[in-house]
Amino acid sequence: MIEEKIAVVGTGRMGANIARRLKDKGFVLSAVYDAHRPAAEALGVELGVAVPERLAEVSALASIILTVVTDDRAMDAIFSSSGDSLLAGGHAGGRLFVNCATVSPGMHVEVERRARAVGAEVLEACMASSIPQAREGTLYLMCGGAVSSFERARPVLEALSASMRHVGGTGRAAQLKALVNMVMNMNTAALAEGLGLAEALGLDLAMVREVFSQTGANSRVLQTDGEDMQNRDHACFFSGAHAAKDSGIALALAEEAGLVLPLAQATKAQFDRLVAAGKGELDKSGIAELTFLSRRS
Amino acid sequence: MIEEKIAVVGTGRMGANIARRLKDKGFVLSAVYDAHRPAAEALGVELGVAVPERLAEVSALASIILTVVTDDRAMDAIFSSSGDSLLAGGHAGGRLFVNCATVSPGMHVEVERRARAVGAEVLEACMASSIPQAREGTLYLMCGGAVSSFERARPVLEALSASMRHVGGTGRAAQLKALVNMVMNMNTAALAEGLGLAEALGLDLAMVREVFSQTGANSRVLQTDGEDMQNRDHACFFSGAHAAKDSGIALALAEEAGLVLPLAQATKAQFDRLVAAGKGELDKSGIAELTFLSRRS
Repeated sequence: MIEEKIAVVGTGRMGANIARRLKDKGFVLSAVYDAHRPAAEALGVELGVAVPERLAEVSALASIILTVVTDDRAMDAIFSSSGDSLLAGGHAGGRLFVNCATVSPGMHVEVERRARAVGAEVLEACMASSIPQAREGTLYLMCGGAVSSFERARPVLEALSASMRHVGGTGRAAQLKALVNMVMNMNTAALAEGLGLAEALGLDLAMVREVFSQTGANSRVLQTDGEDMQNRDHACFFSGAHAAKDSGIALALAEEAGLVLPLAQATKAQFDRLVAAGKGELDKSGIAELTFLSRRS
Repeated sequence: MIEEKIAVVGTGRMGANIARRLKDKGFVLSAVYDAHRPAAEALGVELGVAVPERLAEVSALASIILTVVTDDRAMDAIFSSSGDSLLAGGHAGGRLFVNCATVSPGMHVEVERRARAVGAEVLEACMASSIPQAREGTLYLMCGGAVSSFERARPVLEALSASMRHVGGTGRAAQLKALVNMVMNMNTAALAEGLGLAEALGLDLAMVREVFSQTGANSRVLQTDGEDMQNRDHACFFSGAHAAKDSGIALALAEEAGLVLPLAQATKAQFDRLVAAGKGELDKSGIAELTFLSRRS
């Protein structure tokens, strides 16, 4: 078996931690890249890895390329059919692109089409966890694509995850991720309303959170975000802007299907409001800044 | 210590199970009563307990009276200042009324005022659990009122609950219960939207529920209602109509406080829609009947 050489494209918080984790686990890391070059250079120095100036060089240097970019637009750009891209320069043949960004299902399908045209494979690996889990290799991964591509990526994915599963063909993982985040965002906005009303009533919020945890009001976001909402500790693990984006992806899928989802819409509107207030880079727990009377600006 | 004689007013599913549980645990059950007399008579025969025709007689026969009625209107009626009521006939002095119904905080305060005027005590004992927990004595109870009344009721409450706590003065428990149910209802309506969209996308719902359970989309209602939503098993533990009512209580508190809660409003509107469709007596999981394309009538 030929040893795979790994590259990471998109060295934001998630991508950088994925690169660190793979280095720690002994993988051959051959390149890192970011459209914001200083971020990639800092990581390249930290890890002793090449920082190519062009995306085409990344495909020349690596056999498995993990992409962790921001959105559909960025995804479209790195897999562009013209100019510099991961598919340019004739280096992409035989490469496996493991796409970890939360982008729309349709974008994954389009990228697969372009990659196959030059003899490359793609796999979706959607991450339903956050920064610390990336660093510690305890992500929850949902993968979509050919089973053979999933098996090729398995050693790398196992180093990154506490749990992973193949959920179907290309685009399925993105659909599921959009669903997960849509529900998570609704539960988050709901919790913020509950705690905001509790504060308005003069109830002790620690007591309220404890009661919530014992009852039908309990949720994962109560555990992850409840205390942060109370303490206004909105250090960012998953930003309000990302929440708005992911709810938007899910709502677009709903609209295509002819489904009206009132809570998902109300949630998207709340996160949009947070972004419009210039607070989109707060953690999603920051949505509580909109539901506490005492925090009205 | 004089042995307390217990009565239960309101013998619907919750009240009847509370009476059965107290009988099982060896309490002296001296009367049961329901405005719908046949329900009370059936329970009276089952438990070998008196079934007075008038509320005033209930107060004559018992020292601790648990009330488990439907809503503010029923609560107002059983504690009426005129006509037949628990406070009429001069029997209420020294009685402790333990009020378990989910009614508005203001109603609890008003009932306390009327009861004190005739020398009786009241305690709120709001139940954040459902029918099976009542039968098994594993309710989660939130109590509001004087600490002395809480202590007097303690042996009875301990027989009914797995966990209980005193959360403040009269009205506080109702506030907290309204908050718990408001958040539970939002999470329920959110889950129904997630599963409805999953079905529209052709995803396997059992797989989706399993992924939800491993991620930020997890919640108590996913555990209690997720499979029921998938299987359309809406046998009633907590009805859609009750959900609409409780969300309404919480929204009224929010409005008084000057708080706008968009998700709580959207949730109330969904449960109102369920009721308007003649499906208010389905379990709250029935909200999924509104979010699955295949279930559109």
